Amino acid sequence: MIRKELTEIIKKKRSFLCVGLDSDINKIPGHLLNTEDPIFEFNKHIVNATHESAVAYKPNLAFYESMGSKGWISLEKTVNYIRSKTSDIFIIADAKRGDIGNTSAMYAKTFFETYNFDGVTLAPYMGLDTVSPFLEYDGKWSIILALTSNKSAADFQYIEDNDKVSLYQNVLKTARTWGTNDQIMFVVGATKAEALADIRKIAPDNFLLVPGVGAQGGSLEEVAKYGMNDHCGLLVNSSRGIIYASVDHDFAEVAKQKAVELQQEMEVYLKRSNLI
Amino acid sequence: MIRKELTEIIKKKRSFLCVGLDSDINKIPGHLLNTEDPIFEFNKHIVNATHESAVAYKPNLAFYESMGSKGWISLEKTVNYIRSKTSDIFIIADAKRGDIGNTSAMYAKTFFETYNFDGVTLAPYMGLDTVSPFLEYDGKWSIILALTSNKSAADFQYIEDNDKVSLYQNVLKTARTWGTNDQIMFVVGATKAEALADIRKIAPDNFLLVPGVGAQGGSLEEVAKYGMNDHCGLLVNSSRGIIYASVDHDFAEVAKQKAVELQQEMEVYLKRSNLI
Repeated sequence: MIRKELTEIIKKKRSFLCVGLDSDINKIPGHLLNTEDPIFEFNKHIVNATHESAVAYKPNLAFYESMGSKGWISLEKTVNYIRSKTSDIFIIADAKRGDIGNTSAMYAKTFFETYNFDGVTLAPYMGLDTVSPFLEYDGKWSIILALTSNKSAADFQYIEDNDKVSLYQNVLKTARTWGTNDQIMFVVGATKAEALADIRKIAPDNFLLVPGVGAQGGSLEEVAKYGMNDHCGLLVNSSRGIIYASVDHDFAEVAKQKAVELQQEMEVYLKRSNLI
Repeated sequence: MIRKELTEIIKKKRSFLCVGLDSDINKIPGHLLNTEDPIFEFNKHIVNATHESAVAYKPNLAFYESMGSKGWISLEKTVNYIRSKTSDIFIIADAKRGDIGNTSAMYAKTFFETYNFDGVTLAPYMGLDTVSPFLEYDGKWSIILALTSNKSAADFQYIEDNDKVSLYQNVLKTARTWGTNDQIMFVVGATKAEALADIRKIAPDNFLLVPGVGAQGGSLEEVAKYGMNDHCGLLVNSSRGIIYASVDHDFAEVAKQKAVELQQEMEVYLKRSNLI
């Protein structure tokens, strides 16, 4: 999917919501545990309930891997189910991989061939070599960590060089040159909404994947205010605030309600920016 | 496994060799492809051939993931097979994970509970939050990327702060305080052997995992000269140089021969440092 298509889906659905599928066997409603594949069953209900409000899904790989090979089967079924349900969707492997050469090529193969993802989150520490095998796939995205929303992001991301440019700014400056705006997206934590204005000076045209709205405390209004560009340029993720809003029999209905609330708020900001 | 035990295995086997299991379905000998699980079959032969010369194995996760859930089954069987074969062994998941909070805890669970690894390679970009859930497991290791051997390592790892301290040096300085020398190990590429002397000034006591000897061109003698400390403090990895030294019916014999050659060279350096 190229940037233009993603923007069209955003306009059509009046939403830039990404639903994070951090599907945890210890948190999903108990009545699902008797099914053959509880994680897939949970995801299926969540997808059914939210796919009209969401433009993207983001399975968090750690949750699937922690279940071993069974988890990878649940993941595969989930991706295929989303694809069967709608073509107006962007699917992200939140994998934060980061390796080089032949190994990196294997990761690209995993997420773009073995599994049919549109994008993968990647760690920039090892430089371009981490990303280049992913760039060889047309219509696929490298979603590179820039500024994260966790407390210890400051350990390294804020270290300034001699020109007072911090590491995360150097990552943005350098990594945006590695590919086109149809290939490179950045992860920017929502708890740093005011930093989005500065980030937009460095990377005006790239899509930004913004986690941390909701459970992690970021403000959607501020993210839209500082981060939106003339292609929208935002995917804002919510995981726990949607998928675990209820952990009872009504979990899918409540998830739907939460997703619709976010979609409606997003619609306001899209209108405010004359995007719809 | 604590550092003392690892050092004892090194002394007993007169080796600090780590064999990298970058087991690729497109590279293993053709006659194995008819078996039920070719990757496991290949690994079993490699382990049988090399376990007396190696103190560690390092499956490279990308190669297993690229085969989907089947690959994770091969991985699990491989770890269990190594454990059944010998207790004098350290097993590393070369996964280069890097996430935070609950997600990071899930990765720790994956590698230390679902699979019985001794250590996992981790990317430092997001800071301490990435590593802290791994530190909660006694006898398990966080193996943190510091200086890598690839060309584009220079993109970010060499960026200097105001005090002329480069990012990889900042990672060493900061991350070594996150845990004890029984918990924190660093990845340092062998093509930068001369940098090992400086690295030892910052992290004198940590074990270093050194890839890049052999196929990637690093010199074992230089790594031993600049990197060895009074606990040995080194695990030197070779992957392709051992496991693909022959891709014919004699692959296991040739792998054994290559592993023995490296072990014998390592024995010289261990003696030179009065460790054995």
